Formats: sequence, structure tokens, C-alpha cells
Amino acid sequence: MDVVEFSPEPAEYAYTFGGVAPVRKVRPGTALRLWTDDAFGGALRTPSDLPSEKLTMPFVNPQTGPFYVEGAEPGDTLALHFADLTPARSFGASATIPLFGGLTSTDRTATLQDPLPERTWIYEVDSARGTVGFQAQSSDLRLELPMNPMLGTVGVAPAAGEARSSLVPDAFGGNMDTPEMRAGATCYLPVNVPGALFSVGDGHYRQGEGEACGTAVEGAMNVTLIVDLVKGGGPAWPRIESDTHLMVVGSSRPLEDAWRISSVQMTQWLAGLYGLDTMDAYQLLSQVSEAPLANVVDANYSSVVKVPKGLLPDRAVYDGLHAHLRGSAASL
Amino acid sequence: MDVVEFSPEPAEYAYTFGGVAPVRKVRPGTALRLWTDDAFGGALRTPSDLPSEKLTMPFVNPQTGPFYVEGAEPGDTLALHFADLTPARSFGASATIPLFGGLTSTDRTATLQDPLPERTWIYEVDSARGTVGFQAQSSDLRLELPMNPMLGTVGVAPAAGEARSSLVPDAFGGNMDTPEMRAGATCYLPVNVPGALFSVGDGHYRQGEGEACGTAVEGAMNVTLIVDLVKGGGPAWPRIESDTHLMVVGSSRPLEDAWRISSVQMTQWLAGLYGLDTMDAYQLLSQVSEAPLANVVDANYSSVVKVPKGLLPDRAVYDGLHAHLRGSAASL
Amino acid sequence: MDVVEFSPEPAEYAYTFGGVAPVRKVRPGTALRLWTDDAFGGALRTPSDLPSEKLTMPFVNPQTGPFYVEGAEPGDTLALHFADLTPARSFGASATIPLFGGLTSTDRTATLQDPLPERTWIYEVDSARGTVGFQAQSSDLRLELPMNPMLGTVGVAPAAGEARSSLVPDAFGGNMDTPEMRAGATCYLPVNVPGALFSVGDGHYRQGEGEACGTAVEGAMNVTLIVDLVKGGGPAWPRIESDTHLMVVGSSRPLEDAWRISSVQMTQWLAGLYGLDTMDAYQLLSQVSEAPLANVVDANYSSVVKVPKGLLPDRAVYDGLHAHLRGSAASL
Amino acid sequence: MDVVEFSPEPAEYAYTFGGVAPVRKVRPGTALRLWTDDAFGGALRTPSDLPSEKLTMPFVNPQTGPFYVEGAEPGDTLALHFADLTPARSFGASATIPLFGGLTSTDRTATLQDPLPERTWIYEVDSARGTVGFQAQSSDLRLELPMNPMLGTVGVAPAAGEARSSLVPDAFGGNMDTPEMRAGATCYLPVNVPGALFSVGDGHYRQGEGEACGTAVEGAMNVTLIVDLVKGGGPAWPRIESDTHLMVVGSSRPLEDAWRISSVQMTQWLAGLYGLDTMDAYQLLSQVSEAPLANVVDANYSSVVKVPKGLLPDRAVYDGLHAHLRGSAASL
Repeated sequence: MDVVEFSPEPAEYAYTFGGVAPVRKVRPGTALRLWTDDAFGGALRTPSDLPSEKLTMPFVNPQTGPFYVEGAEPGDTLALHFADLTPARSFGASATIPLFGGLTSTDRTATLQDPLPERTWIYEVDSARGTVGFQAQSSDLRLELPMNPMLGTVGVAPAAGEARSSLVPDAFGGNMDTPEMRAGATCYLPVNVPGALFSVGDGHYRQGEGEACGTAVEGAMNVTLIVDLVKGGGPAWPRIESDTHLMVVGSSRPLEDAWRISSVQMTQWLAGLYGLDTMDAYQLLSQVSEAPLANVVDANYSSVVKVPKGLLPDRAVYDGLHAHLRGSAASL
Repeated sequence: MDVVEFSPEPAEYAYTFGGVAPVRKVRPGTALRLWTDDAFGGALRTPSDLPSEKLTMPFVNPQTGPFYVEGAEPGDTLALHFADLTPARSFGASATIPLFGGLTSTDRTATLQDPLPERTWIYEVDSARGTVGFQAQSSDLRLELPMNPMLGTVGVAPAAGEARSSLVPDAFGGNMDTPEMRAGATCYLPVNVPGALFSVGDGHYRQGEGEACGTAVEGAMNVTLIVDLVKGGGPAWPRIESDTHLMVVGSSRPLEDAWRISSVQMTQWLAGLYGLDTMDAYQLLSQVSEAPLANVVDANYSSVVKVPKGLLPDRAVYDGLHAHLRGSAASL
Repeated sequence: MDVVEFSPEPAEYAYTFGGVAPVRKVRPGTALRLWTDDAFGGALRTPSDLPSEKLTMPFVNPQTGPFYVEGAEPGDTLALHFADLTPARSFGASATIPLFGGLTSTDRTATLQDPLPERTWIYEVDSARGTVGFQAQSSDLRLELPMNPMLGTVGVAPAAGEARSSLVPDAFGGNMDTPEMRAGATCYLPVNVPGALFSVGDGHYRQGEGEACGTAVEGAMNVTLIVDLVKGGGPAWPRIESDTHLMVVGSSRPLEDAWRISSVQMTQWLAGLYGLDTMDAYQLLSQVSEAPLANVVDANYSSVVKVPKGLLPDRAVYDGLHAHLRGSAASL
Repeated sequence: MDVVEFSPEPAEYAYTFGGVAPVRKVRPGTALRLWTDDAFGGALRTPSDLPSEKLTMPFVNPQTGPFYVEGAEPGDTLALHFADLTPARSFGASATIPLFGGLTSTDRTATLQDPLPERTWIYEVDSARGTVGFQAQSSDLRLELPMNPMLGTVGVAPAAGEARSSLVPDAFGGNMDTPEMRAGATCYLPVNVPGALFSVGDGHYRQGEGEACGTAVEGAMNVTLIVDLVKGGGPAWPRIESDTHLMVVGSSRPLEDAWRISSVQMTQWLAGLYGLDTMDAYQLLSQVSEAPLANVVDANYSSVVKVPKGLLPDRAVYDGLHAHLRGSAASL
């Protein structure tokens, strides 16, 4: 397998999906060993580093990429298999940012109230124990939390000539902020432009579902992924396959629309896989779905609908591509 | 322990929370062995039993209760521990109901489109295997799905003199439709009126998160629960405690407001339990929360926020009431 | 015409729609001369009267009624024609209430932020000039604003055995808070229970569309209305007819659902009046509708869709009932 | 005054805000005489021209522009005064488009229902009478409706390196679809990139508030506008000033967020103009606002908040720029 290594200089960071020239061309079947900076560009390193002082909007969520996938044409399906996600720093950072987050008014859910206080938390990484350390600021509570490395942003260039901020999740993927985007998962994205132009970033060492305060345990990440391409069949919305689940990620506002998107997409996916009519698939989904929220803080909210493979007859989704990529990853 | 048995006649069914006289008075510490009819009042027994022909609105979600809890006063906390939920029929029923459900326009999300087809599915219960059988109608796909008995409705009389349909979830509990309301869980509800006047119903043999089509595998249920009372401390919104998680259920529209409610409540709960200030609790929640949807189909949508006890220092919530009730249940 | 006068004592105030015994029985065709207290029960009389000190929740929006309309049966249409609305006090009051209003987080749109300051404004009524006086508190800006008396709450007992707080707008009417509910208008409501059990209250001497801070220029009101009844034809949602417009008021959350409700209802109303199919009516509505918001602050948000009669061929809606009641009112 | 004339060839149409090279450079104070094609690119000319057959997505809402305004820098305020809007064709077209519109499920408010029928209506323009003719398709109802020419899209290049489809309204303006964007109005927009890069399009000969079916009476338009520039003071969201009103247009989802945006912005605008503190401005807004919906169909919904100048002390907003531009327009 071809292996491409790429670690961007800050000047090479991308801050949008679309509207950016590719950093590399890769062939389907290639493995990429990438480094991605954290959402803050590494600017928050101690609790005294406050976002309003250290960050320059809109230069957050720096992307590694975009990559031009040879042969990818609009309508195709891009498959990204995450072989490994390993923290690339000894600490992660989280912060509250004025008028950003889920339990505050925002630029959209606008109120006349004062913003919440700005604060930064630093989590020490203990690689041996596989944990990150939470340290309260107003008390001496200290907790070790298991690491669960994931990528907040995985996306392609949008359709319709759009370029979207790396803070946005939508049909092109992007800033979905779901803990399901972890090592061992395969993400299927629609190809909207020649070459797909995908990028990744926004590593999280750990994140709760919903990402309540708007930021996870943000950290630079070493990412190993395998790129593949399925001709045609581009899904309307991002899909994720793991060893145990099929998933769809819908992103919109209000939150029920994000859920409706992922549920309709999953209904249609099940109908196709099992030869069900729409009503039978709708019924089946109603009894087997898991529905963990991803984020309720971004420009669109993201809702994941999951179906456990173990409840369903075995089907080789995308001709068994996930299993194939799992195998390839094991040989890296 | 006192044990009260009650199995209502249809004429004794309640269809609202509030506005109904109690069927029994019970003392805190009493165990109740109850029978609850299913959401359809048992009217759907074959696939040819269609809701529009067999149901008479608003007589759905019949409640067993309400029960008057002696000593319960506004401001108190009612604790209901579910010792056992056992299917009381050999089949469950699910159905699509015109203009009701999550992937259709409704009386609220009103459109000019035709309703989806009306259809009823019957699931045979295999008690030995602990499964219910899904049978597709448009094909011969048949699946055995594990049973996961739960109660869709658990609630008290609302505040402010209101009486609410048993289809409604809100601060008083009600039709929350969360799979977390299972045997082994303790539900904490605010007491709004003297005696609390709680009722239960809407048994589900199994339900997916979100309850996409609007109905679960609905089935009559034998319910064993223990009633207890904590003076004062009535929570603003329903809480659930299991052996592994603390949970809050928020219910509102749009769905992000349901999530905001449960997340704010959980932040405040964590702050109180661990002596954290609000911002530290907000940060902690952001990294440890699980956020499975309950329903996106009812008069309010319900969103559950869960925190795994295993990630947090041990605390005796409500003075260890859940563990105490677990013990009492074991001795029944 | 029979004329009934009624001015409730505080002990006779109703605080819910439904769940309350009628104060009077009236025959269709009767005129009622009523007095209604303001939303605060008259408790805010100077800027130093703060809601948290002077109000006892949930005892706000006291209703005058309910009235039992003889012959009214479920499925019928109750018509209430507002002949006259005259301020009954020399001042109106408005206030900001902690965690209530449109530009603040609330119990539903919950955040962790501090509430906005609590403040009360008193508006002097100048009956001769027909104005109320706004006096800024942080500066000496003083404005005379035209009075535009209206009723915030007009409603009947809900369906399905529910009782709803007088703070709630829904299909039964209630706290719709639309400036369209003014003298000269006829409101059509569905009858859900025998006698309809309607009540009115929450007089506003003036209100902006949206009712941003959650309260209008609240004032006690002398209300003259004529009750009438149309057998059958109960509308799914409240309608208002003025000399110039047909209107529907939808109330739900999110706000787009309130608008969808009123728009679907108006489409169907137009289709029926003009013999149009649904698509033609939808098209016509799209080009002629006016869509002023009513409130974005109550338990449900209310959105009004209006169609100017002047753009449409003349039709005698409800057999010309509005014109008839206008005539009757003129003779009072 | 300099006058620039520009009528684009189809190959010069822009379909995004941002991401497009300017067609002309203009100096502040220049008048532009423009021609804009309709939303359908003129492709719908008879009722048998159906969108699915005649339109190629995403090539709708073609923009005339973008124009580079000399001296415009990020943070400045672009002022566009609409001197004249005159229909440029003898007919307008409206249509229902599958899964697009306000009273249908969509790609976002996704359901499993069938789409509504696709249909096209052609409105004949009677310039002498100033009307457009509605002709029902299922009956012989024919109505003359007054013309009220307006522009659906007026926008600048977005911030943060984004490029957005001409179907999107947001902080940069864009597809706001408000009838307030008519001749005699001045629109103030934030400058996000050097030169502002504004464009206009999507002429409507008439539109109802809400734009229920998703399309107005769409028609090519001759647009005369005057460009001006205010250094600094770029508003967070688009403002409109007419002879009678100050307005803000908020665009987001859910619809209450669009209203919150425009209401918070208007509160702050009033506070600044009249030296009020936030709470006094909030109170004043609550009693004087008008809140007509713009659209509930686009990628974001748009809500207008208006304040009548006649209720407020006279203030020379932007140093009287609107009155100045009115005068300049009169001399064209």
C-alpha cells in the first residue's frame, strides 16, 4: 500500500471546506499518515491562555488537507478508514468561549444577557494509563477520564460552489463533532467536486455527546487513515460504519431536523440493504435505532442515528469495504 | 414491606396527568404490583387492526393510577423504583398513525402532503428467548429482537392546576418514552400537588431511541415498583438513577431546548454533588455526558443526558436511596 | 339583545382554560359587558413594584370566565365578537421577569447565564389623546405611544380532558398575545366541551408584534363582546376575522411550526371559500399572505397568517356572521 | 453622479456570494442601472414548464454582480439605495418545486412522504394597472393582484472565507426574500472583504410574507440603485431603512433564532440612537416593534423586525444617509 506522510506548516492550514487548493494528490487505496493541529492551533497551553486573547477568529479548526483523490468525480463515494488516532501532544485543552456553546446564548440564539465567564482547562495526557486529567478550577476535584480519541472534522468540498468554514457541519461532513469518528471506523462521504478535496482536523482526546460547552478535550492528533473510492452511490449525508454499527450523521437546525435527516437516510439505507419497502424499514428503524447526539453547539447541530449490525442479518455494505479496510489497516 | 396490588378495569383508566381522582392511597415504602394496558388499550391485535378503525382518540396511553402518596407535599421528591417489568401479553403491537410520528408531517409540523400509509405490525413474544419477532409486511424478512421492557409514561400531576394528556411529556414526567425507564432504575419526580398523584403506563417491550415512527413494541405490562418519598428537594425535571448512570430527562420543543433543559439540570446536579462551581460542572459535563434521544415524536420531544457513575467519585445521591431500593426490590 | 354584566372578584378569577366551573351561562346572541384584571392582577403599580416581590406564580393572567354557552357542543364553532375594549385603569404596567421573555434564556431555552435585571415600567394613560406614556428609567426619554387595546388571552376549554395554564396558547386559543385581537374583530374558536367554557383576559393597552420582553402595556380592561355560535364546523385552530382580513393563529414551538400551522389552515380555508384545489390555494396564499408574529415568549409561540379581503372576491364567511355582529355591536 | 449600466450575459451570472471575481469596480456614490434575470433564469414561461425539467440545480437565483466597491474594507458599512425596481418582462412565474417550500417536507425537515405535485403558474403583468394576474389551474378563478416589486437577494461576500449559494440568507444578506427590499429603501450591509463584492438578483413582482410555497411571482427586473459607503460601523446583520421604518433582517433556524437575532440587533440599535440602556431599549422595542416574516422556506429563515420612525424622536441615522440617497435618486 502506498503511504503518504504529511504534516502541514501553519501556513498550509486550511480553514474552509472548498475554496482551497489541494496540498497533495492521492490515489484510492493510499494510506495517509497525517498530523493535525488542535482546534485552537495549539494556542491554549495553560489555564491562563484565554480564547479571546490567544485566538484570532476565524482561524480555528485548522484542517490538514485538502487532498485530491484521483478519479473521484461528483456522485462518487469517498471512503476514509481511520486506522489509528494517537494524541500528538502531552496535553489537551478545553475552554469556554464567550457566546459560543450549548448552555449559553449565542450569535444565533441571541439574548441580551451577559456571556458566561471565559475559562480554559488543561488536561494532562497519561499515555500509559490512557487517560486525560480533569482539574477543577474552583475546587480541588481531580478526575482521570479515559481517552477516546476522535476527529471533530472530516469533510469534503461542498456542492454548489460553496466554501464553508471548518466550524460548520453539513451534508459534506465537516465539523460533525461526533465521538463515533474514532479509530476503526470508516466514513463514507459524497463527492461533490472533482478530486473530492477532503480534509481532516479538530482532534479530540475525549468528548461528551452534545459537546455541551462547545469544546472537547482538544488536542493535536497523529492520524493514520486509508483513502478509498467507490464509483457512484454518493450518499446524500455522511455515513459511518464500524465493526458493530451502521450510522448516518445529519446536521441542521433545529436539532429535530438533524435527527430527521439521519433517520430518513437510515430508513432508506435499511430499505436498500434488506429489500424492505419504506414503511417496513421505518418500523424496523423505530425499534432498533440508537440516537446519540453529536454536537448541539456548532453552526449546524449534528445527530447520529445508529443501527447495531448484530440485530440484523449480515450484509456486505459497499461490497465489504469496511472489513477490507480493517484488514488493510491491520497490515500497516 | 407493604404490597399493594392493582389492576384497573378499563373504566378506571386515566388519560391525563392531573384532573383525576386517585385510585388508591399508598404509604411511602410500599411496593405496588400493577398491571398496565398498552398504549392502544389492547385494540391492535393483528396487522389488519388499523389505528384509525380501532382507536378512539384521545383514549390512548391509558394510565394505571393515579396513586395518592401519603405525606407527599408540593416541593417534595417522589421516588419510584422499578423492581420488575414483565410483559403481560404474548404479543406487542406497533403501528403508523396518520400524521403522527417523527418522519412525517404532523398536526404541528404541518404540511400539505398526504399522510404516510397506516399499518400495524404484531411482534410475537418469545419469553424463553427473551425476544420479540419483527415480521416485514412487504417481504419475508423476519428478525428476532431482544426484549428490553420499559415504561413510556411515568408521571405526576402537573403544577399550576394543569391537567395534561397522557401523550405529553414535560416537567411532571409523563410520556417521556425513554428506554432508560427500565427495571432496576429509580425515577425521581417533583411533587406538585398533595399526594403527588402519580401514574404509570405505556409499556414497551422494546423501543429504539427517538421512537421514530411514534410507537414502540407496545404491550401490556406487569409492573412492580416501590414508592418512596424524599421530603423537599423536588427536582425541576425528572431524574433517573440506575446502577451505572445519573440521568435527567428534558422535554420540550425544539429538540435543542429539551437537550438544554437536561444539560442545565445535570450541570447543576453535578455542581451540587461535587461542590463544583457552575463553570467547572459545565466543563466536566461536556466531557462525560452521554446524550441518547428518547422520543422525537410526542407533544414535547424528550432528550436524556446521562453521566456514568464510574467516571466520577462515589456519592450517595439522595442519601443512597437508589441502592436502598435496589435492596428492597431484591427482597420482594 | 340580552346583555350580561360581570366583573369578577379576585376569588372568582380563573387561571386555567378547562378544569374550572363556569361563572355564568349565556345564550348565543348575548352581549357581555366584562371587566378583566391585568396579567399581574393589578399588583404592579409603580416602577418599584418588582414581579418577584409582588407576583405569586402561577397566579398571573387571571381570566374572566369561564362562560358556559348554551347549546355549544364539541365540534361547533364559537364566535366572539369584540365590540369594545376600553382601558379600565389610568395606567398600564410592563415588566421584565427573570428568565421569562424573548431575548433571554428561559426555563425551556435554558442556559447557565444570569437572568436579565428585573424592572417595571409604568405607562400613564392619556385617554383624551389616546396614548400611553413610555418613560425610560436610565435616561429622560419620554414617548407618547398610541393606544391599541387588545386582549392577550381568549380561549375555550381544551380537548382531551386537559386544563392549561392561562399562560399557554394552543389550538384552544388562550394566551395568543396577538395585537389582532382588538375591537372590531371576531374570533372563531373550536368547541371542545359542552358549553365551550370560554374566558378572556390579559388586556394590553399596546403591544409590539413578538411581545419581545414577554409583557405588553398590561392593563385592566372593560370588554364588551357578543357571543355567538355556529353549529358544527369547529376550526382546528383559532381564526380571526376583521373588516379587512381573514386570519389564522397557530401556536407551537419551534416558531416555524406555529407558522406552518396557520399557513396550512389558511390554505385549506381559502381552498374551501374559493373552490380551489390545495395547490392553487397554496400558490395564492404564497403571494397574498401577511405574516406578523404575535408572541415569541409564551409556552407556545404564536404566528398569525392574514389574507387581505380586498385582494379576494367577496365571500360571506360563516354566512356573513362578522358583518352581522358588527351591526349588532353598533346598536349596543 | 456617475452612472454605470450593466446587464449580464448568462455566462456572467454569479451563483454564490463570495468566491466570484467582480464584474465591475464602482466608486461610492455611483448609480447602477442593472438588469437581473429571475430566479429561474427565465426558464419557466408557461404552466407546462416544470422546474424539474427546465431547471438545472444549483443554477438558480442568478446574481448580477458582484461589484467591487472602491475603498470598502472589512468593518465598513455598505449602503445600497434602491431608486427604482421595474419589471423587465411581461410575465412573472411561480412554481412548486419538489421538497422545497414552507408547507412540505424538505431536504432538512425530512420525512418519508411523497412530495407535493410540481406545478408552474404564470402571472401576466399589466403595467398600466400595476398588477399581475393569478390564474388558478384547477378552476377558473382569476385575480388581479397589485405589483409590489422587490429583490429577493441583496448581499455581499461572507466573512471567514466562505462562499454561499445565492439561495442562502445570512449575516451577509443574500436570499432574505423580504418584501421590504423595495424601491425607496436603503439596505445597510457589513463589508467582510475588500471591495465588499455585492450582488443583487431574484426579482419578485409580488411576494407574500413567509413566501409559503418557496417562490414568489418571480420576474426579471430592471434595478436602479445607488452605492454608498460608510467607513466603519459595519452592522452585524443587514439593516433596511425606509422613509417610515428602521428594520433589521435576521436569518437562521429555527425561526425564533432569526427573530431573536433581529430583535437583539434592533434593541442595540435603538439603545445607540437614543442613549438608552439595554433594558429600556428592550422595553421600548417590546411595545413598538412590527415583526413581519420574510421567508420560512430558504436555507435559513428570515425574520424582519421593524420600528416605525413616527413613534420615535427624529434621529439622523447614518448622518441622514437615507434621506440624502432619496434625494440623489430623485435627481436620476
